[in-house]
Amino acid sequence: MQPWLDEIRWDSDGLVPAIAQEASSGDVLMFAWMNREALSATVERGQAVYWSRSRQRLWHKGEASGHWQQVHEIRMDCDNDVLLLKVSQLGHDPGIACHTGRHSCFFQRLQSGAWQPVEPVLLAPEKIYK
Amino acid sequence: MQPWLDEIRWDSDGLVPAIAQEASSGDVLMFAWMNREALSATVERGQAVYWSRSRQRLWHKGEASGHWQQVHEIRMDCDNDVLLLKVSQLGHDPGIACHTGRHSCFFQRLQSGAWQPVEPVLLAPEKIYK
Repeated sequence: MQPWLDEIRWDSDGLVPAIAQEASSGDVLMFAWMNREALSATVERGQAVYWSRSRQRLWHKGEASGHWQQVHEIRMDCDNDVLLLKVSQLGHDPGIACHTGRHSCFFQRLQSGAWQPVEPVLLAPEKIYK
Repeated sequence: MQPWLDEIRWDSDGLVPAIAQEASSGDVLMFAWMNREALSATVERGQAVYWSRSRQRLWHKGEASGHWQQVHEIRMDCDNDVLLLKVSQLGHDPGIACHTGRHSCFFQRLQSGAWQPVEPVLLAPEKIYK
């Protein structure tokens, strides 16, 4: 019995969007999706587990990269259909959430009518995914 | 000609998720959706314009509440399918992004197996929507 799971308004695919925010800095690190199983696993483990829509399977963040996310807090929005996770990004200092080796996935900034990468690569992807 | 709009991977409904984050505090305020027209209008006005999926029309945030969002910066993620807006939440001090009269839409925290509201109502909704 997990009535708090039933309060979430899962979409027609059984998913909700999840935003991961670094607890210490406030930086928004990434955006992903969760189903009931992913959220249950996240709560049980205290580490972020998402649902990979491209691979159609549970995705324990860090399973390939070693860049886990410790989850401190889970928030839900006013419509009960979006989650916000306050996390510590583990496995590298400073934390690497993005598969490109950057701190945050949101590294492209719109300026002068073009998307410009404005954050450095902290670790080359070929060193992350061996 | 707006090639930067074509670089975005719009979903099958022509939408992308957009996260609004308060520039000054780092607080994640809300989550909404944008289509091409909403994002173009956001850039032109310098104020957040979303696409309301429930009403199926452009939604200039603040049009009913007076709680506008000034947009300082627009970021895009590594997959080119999620946007992050750095905003100032205007019209009330402290800023009210949520239709419930709270600062942030993410005011429910999971604790002891239940969702608990953990942020105060700053202004009653009936005073916002007259």
